[in-house]
Amino acid sequence: MTMTAEAAAARIAVRVELGTRSYDILIGRGLLDVAGSEIAARLPGARAAVVTDRNVAAAQLPRLAASLAAAGIEVVPVIIAPGEASKSFGMLEHVVRQVLAARLERRDVVIALGGGVIGDLTGFASAIVRRGMRFVQIPTSLLAQVDSSVGGKTGINTPEGKNLVGAFHQPELVLADTGALDTLSPREFRAGYAEVAKYGLINDAPFFAWLEANWRGIFAGGPEREHAVATSCRSKAKVVAADEHETGERALLNLGHTFGHALEAATHYSDRLVHGEGVSIGMVLAHRFSARMNLCSPDDGRRVARHLAEVGLPTEMRQIPGELPDADGLMALIAQDKKVSRGTLTFILTHGIGESFIARDVPPAEVRAFLRETLEA
Amino acid sequence: MTMTAEAAAARIAVRVELGTRSYDILIGRGLLDVAGSEIAARLPGARAAVVTDRNVAAAQLPRLAASLAAAGIEVVPVIIAPGEASKSFGMLEHVVRQVLAARLERRDVVIALGGGVIGDLTGFASAIVRRGMRFVQIPTSLLAQVDSSVGGKTGINTPEGKNLVGAFHQPELVLADTGALDTLSPREFRAGYAEVAKYGLINDAPFFAWLEANWRGIFAGGPEREHAVATSCRSKAKVVAADEHETGERALLNLGHTFGHALEAATHYSDRLVHGEGVSIGMVLAHRFSARMNLCSPDDGRRVARHLAEVGLPTEMRQIPGELPDADGLMALIAQDKKVSRGTLTFILTHGIGESFIARDVPPAEVRAFLRETLEA
Repeated sequence: MTMTAEAAAARIAVRVELGTRSYDILIGRGLLDVAGSEIAARLPGARAAVVTDRNVAAAQLPRLAASLAAAGIEVVPVIIAPGEASKSFGMLEHVVRQVLAARLERRDVVIALGGGVIGDLTGFASAIVRRGMRFVQIPTSLLAQVDSSVGGKTGINTPEGKNLVGAFHQPELVLADTGALDTLSPREFRAGYAEVAKYGLINDAPFFAWLEANWRGIFAGGPEREHAVATSCRSKAKVVAADEHETGERALLNLGHTFGHALEAATHYSDRLVHGEGVSIGMVLAHRFSARMNLCSPDDGRRVARHLAEVGLPTEMRQIPGELPDADGLMALIAQDKKVSRGTLTFILTHGIGESFIARDVPPAEVRAFLRETLEA
Repeated sequence: MTMTAEAAAARIAVRVELGTRSYDILIGRGLLDVAGSEIAARLPGARAAVVTDRNVAAAQLPRLAASLAAAGIEVVPVIIAPGEASKSFGMLEHVVRQVLAARLERRDVVIALGGGVIGDLTGFASAIVRRGMRFVQIPTSLLAQVDSSVGGKTGINTPEGKNLVGAFHQPELVLADTGALDTLSPREFRAGYAEVAKYGLINDAPFFAWLEANWRGIFAGGPEREHAVATSCRSKAKVVAADEHETGERALLNLGHTFGHALEAATHYSDRLVHGEGVSIGMVLAHRFSARMNLCSPDDGRRVARHLAEVGLPTEMRQIPGELPDADGLMALIAQDKKVSRGTLTFILTHGIGESFIARDVPPAEVRAFLRETLEA
């Protein structure tokens, strides 16, 4: 009960404004222990399926299940294999059929307990069971807390590409228990941190400066962590509210992602480079390419690289273990990315830290030349 | 060109009002031949994937492909096996991957050419490729023209039940070529006609009376056919506009369907009873059950049965070949139906022809007793 009281005290609420589909993101230590009462208050009488992976189940499911039981919420657990390979059609079918077999109705709820893979897969499953079940996100990785659990993008991968199949499906509630991040590996924590830094780089220079001064508190689990998660969620919520279905400004959230995705594809989505590491290198490249196009100062790219390197993230393509494709090979991967529209290249470029913008019609020849120079440097 | 001019002259347009997602249903003979120009006018520059089954491809695809080519629309055909078994996760994955392999972008279009199975499967695939592709319905069965192609319900079946997995995804355009119905088998045409009659029974007694007087013209392919399809679409469009996601009045469209689905399940969705035949028997049962509950006159049920029998539809459970479950068995199937909510039974009942209403909390004991009497009669 002390835990509950503490959690209530430390909690930060961020509202995602989407009309009748608006919802809260609650951020704080110990929220897993009050998940039951928070859900019961919003969805009275609902039964729940909890989708999670074996690793998260071992670490967090008992606490969540106890909290749901205490609130009188009947739970059906659906436990799947961890890892990106679970974002597949086969696993989607498995989860969907488990939810159907549990005889949940449209007014019941599907809960995603885990990182980005669990959130994306479970959100998509909940979008299509009975043409839309209610859905709660309980993200347990930093990446999921600041990025993938917010905004309603759900999906799976196919051999044709990542996240090319999915739905926009907003949750009823997001519970980000910052204490759950204590058990992440340092590499996984850092990878999530790249997305935190991204919000400063997009449009919040003071936040980036605050991160430069305070990142150690975020990693150590001080109150800086809740502030960083809340600031990130607030920033993403604002963008999503303005452009839910990514027809415009939401693309800013892809800062660093076009280069990053190409590098992830080049390394076959392997352990050589995890998503946040690709984003880290991609953000540095986006700043350097912007400087090359005379859009910002080269000092900006140096400052970005210095901070990301300081927290332990890779910032250079040469830090990726193993061989990389040449510039033409990377260009081919960039052209395959879904953010290519009618043959022209759209990039998120920047006028400086906190001044990113959507650049359409970026000349492919300039990108190719930039990549060649960088790879040969 | 004569065909085109004729089609333009005979065409009826029905608007489905859904705000920014409003769209037209065009109804007339020969529309397949002008599909290209209609689509190009609405979606300039779009490329197209056409999903159809082997049977429809043989009968209609050359005409559609010629029309699209004439309008400068590049086409990728996706031809699948005919039959309800194609509404599966496996076929969904196949269609999705074919659309991705064709490298269609979000601004391109996926066209469903076929009956209800093709429309439901293709609509669902287009809802989830890139989180939502544009979609055009070209229904070639009477059932699809008056019911499944209108309203945005898409989906597939799983072993847990029919249509339990899917999405609400509205088309950009529906083209109902009434000439395509000339090649339907009489049984398939009659099955679609059950849904036409349904619109009269729900809330349009004059339309039901008009059908009693004019059904022969509909079957023979006279101008009565376009009038009947347009009246049906107009009726459905109105219900859908008022309740897109079926939280209320849209349930009226399920008149006859709760009994009908149970009978379809009882005959294992086999050739013993096709959907429209189940609806025909189900509508008669709904009127008789309403009379038994003193909600309408027994004469109404007699009149409904007389008309449906006149066109050649089954109206009695004993007309279904083979064994049926007993009343308890049928009740178990009714309870499995997705229109069961929190353990209470919701039925569409009626105060008379054209006066249907949603009855919640129908006592299961009354339904069971009614079924027992009917089966033993």
